[in-house]
Amino acid sequence: MGGDNAPEQIVKGAVLAANAPERDFGILLCGPKDIVEEELKKNSYSGDAITIIDAPDIVAMDEPPAQVLKTKPKSGLVTCVGLQKQGIAQASVSAGNSGAMMATCLMLLGRTANVARPAIACAVPTAKRQVILLDCGANVDEKASVLVDFALCGSVYAEAVMGYENPTVGLVNVGEEEKKGTEVLQEAYQLLKQAPLNFIGNVEGRDLIKGNADVAIAPGYAGNVILKLMEGFYELTKEVFGEVETEKSKEFNRLWDYRNHGGGLLLGLNGVGIITHGRADSVAIYHSLFTACRFAKANVPAKIAEKLAGIKA
Amino acid sequence: MGGDNAPEQIVKGAVLAANAPERDFGILLCGPKDIVEEELKKNSYSGDAITIIDAPDIVAMDEPPAQVLKTKPKSGLVTCVGLQKQGIAQASVSAGNSGAMMATCLMLLGRTANVARPAIACAVPTAKRQVILLDCGANVDEKASVLVDFALCGSVYAEAVMGYENPTVGLVNVGEEEKKGTEVLQEAYQLLKQAPLNFIGNVEGRDLIKGNADVAIAPGYAGNVILKLMEGFYELTKEVFGEVETEKSKEFNRLWDYRNHGGGLLLGLNGVGIITHGRADSVAIYHSLFTACRFAKANVPAKIAEKLAGIKA
Repeated sequence: MGGDNAPEQIVKGAVLAANAPERDFGILLCGPKDIVEEELKKNSYSGDAITIIDAPDIVAMDEPPAQVLKTKPKSGLVTCVGLQKQGIAQASVSAGNSGAMMATCLMLLGRTANVARPAIACAVPTAKRQVILLDCGANVDEKASVLVDFALCGSVYAEAVMGYENPTVGLVNVGEEEKKGTEVLQEAYQLLKQAPLNFIGNVEGRDLIKGNADVAIAPGYAGNVILKLMEGFYELTKEVFGEVETEKSKEFNRLWDYRNHGGGLLLGLNGVGIITHGRADSVAIYHSLFTACRFAKANVPAKIAEKLAGIKA
Repeated sequence: MGGDNAPEQIVKGAVLAANAPERDFGILLCGPKDIVEEELKKNSYSGDAITIIDAPDIVAMDEPPAQVLKTKPKSGLVTCVGLQKQGIAQASVSAGNSGAMMATCLMLLGRTANVARPAIACAVPTAKRQVILLDCGANVDEKASVLVDFALCGSVYAEAVMGYENPTVGLVNVGEEEKKGTEVLQEAYQLLKQAPLNFIGNVEGRDLIKGNADVAIAPGYAGNVILKLMEGFYELTKEVFGEVETEKSKEFNRLWDYRNHGGGLLLGLNGVGIITHGRADSVAIYHSLFTACRFAKANVPAKIAEKLAGIKA
C-alpha cells in the first residue's frame, strides 16, 4: 500500500514480474488481503508466483518512522521485513514511507557488524553505464569514517551485483586535489587512500556524468541532491527530445529512465531492502523486484560483513 | 593569459565583443603587450574598442592564490583588478587561476560591508530560464548565517541584473520539510524565513531543474557539484542528441550551453569580478564581457551593501 500509486501500480508491477519468463523468485504481496486480491483479479493473474500475505495496517507517508514497528505491526512494510527476519522472505521492497522502511529494517534485521550507518545506494546513470552512488539521503552530517564504510559497502555491491571487477571508487568533490572540499571530505580522502579499495581520488560533477568512477561516494545531502538532479535532467530531456528515436537516444533512455534503476538499495543491513520511488509505477516495481532478487542471491550483506571483518581485524 | 585557451580564445572573444553592434563598453586587454598585439593582428582588429595594457607576468594555474598579488604584480589578473580599484576599469574578467582571482579581488577591492564571505554565483539553466545558484565553490563548511548572506547577494543580482522581480529564493535540500538536511541547513532555513527575502523554502534537485526558485542557495561544496553536473549533463545531451534540430532543442541548447551563462559571478565584493571557465572559448569570453558590463551597470555591489545595511540596522 506504499507510495503514490498503490495498490494499482504495485500489484501491476508484481504481476509483470510474475509473468516474466526469466523470473526466478516468488513474490509475497503484503497488504490488506481483500484489496490485493481485487487488484490481482483486475490484472487477471491466476499463476502461483504470487502469494498474498494479509497486512491490513496502512503506514502514512508522514508517520514517524521509528514508531511504525510498534504502531503498525500489521502493515505491509513491517510484515514483509518480519518475514525476512524469519527467513521466509529473502528481500523486502517498499514504495512507501522510506524513513519507516529504513527504521524497520534497522530494528528487525540489524546493521551489518562494523558498519556504523546504513546508506541508501542507487545505481545511477552516466554516459557509460550505471554506477553506484551513495549515500543518497539516509544520513546527514556524516563523519569521514562513515564515508569510508559507504565506499566499502558500495564497492561490494558493484562487484557482487553489477559484476564490475575491482570497481573504481571516487569521492564526489569540488576538485581533483587531496586538499579540496570540506574538512570531512579531506579526512575521508586520506582514509580512503589507506582502505582496501580501488580508490581513484576525487571526482567532480562532470566526471560523475562521464562514469569515471564505478562507485561514487558523497555525504547523504549531496548524494540526494545529485540523484534528484539526475531525475530532473532525464525528465527535461524527455520534454525536449522525447520524440527523437535513434540508437543513441534509445540507449540513453534505457540508462537514464530511473524506473530501470531498481530503486534505493539499503546497504549495511543484515538483509536486503529496497526503497523505491514514491512515484514508482509498475515498470519501476518490476525492476525493483528483479534487483532485489539479484541483491539477495549475491549475498551482499554477508560479503560486506566479511570485507569489514577483514579490515577491522 | 589565463585559462586553457589563452591567449587565442581570450583575444578572439574580446574582438567578437568589440565588433558586436550592441556593445556599450570598452575593453582593456591586460597581458604581455607583444603577445596580445600579435593576437589582435591575427584577428584583424583595428578598431578603438580595445586597449592593450601591458602586463608581462604570467600566473600559473597552481600558483598559491593569496601570493599572486605580491609575486605577480604585473600579471594580467592583478593589473586588471588594480585598474578597477583605481576607477579606470569597472569590471574584471579572468579565465585564469580562479583562487588567485578571488584572492586578488578580495585584497584589492575588499568585501562588501556586512558580507562575511564572498561567493561565486552562476546563472545556471533550468527547464524555464536561468536561475542564480550560489555558492558554486568559493567556500566550504559555511555557517548558516553565511548561507543567508548568499541569499541576499543572489537575490539582489537576480533582481538588478536578470530583471527578476521579487525573486524567489530556495534552499537546496533533501526534502521540503523545515527539519530536513544537515544541521547548518536546518538553521539556515529558520534564518531565511526571517530575512527580507522571497523565501519559498527547500528545493530538491528536481525542483531546481524545473526552475522553481530564481535564486538557489547551497553550500559551496554542493553548489560546485551541481554546477559541474549540469555541464556534464549538457555535454552528454550534445553527444546523444547533437544532431537534433527542433525549436525545443535550439531553446534547450541556448539555455544549457554554459558558454552563454557569463561565468562565475563574484558576489559580496566592492567591485565586479567574473571568473570564467578555464576551458572558456571565444564565445564564453564574449558572453562574460557582456555579463560583466550588465553586472557593473546594475551597480550590484552598492545595492548589496544597501540591502545588508538595512538589515543590520
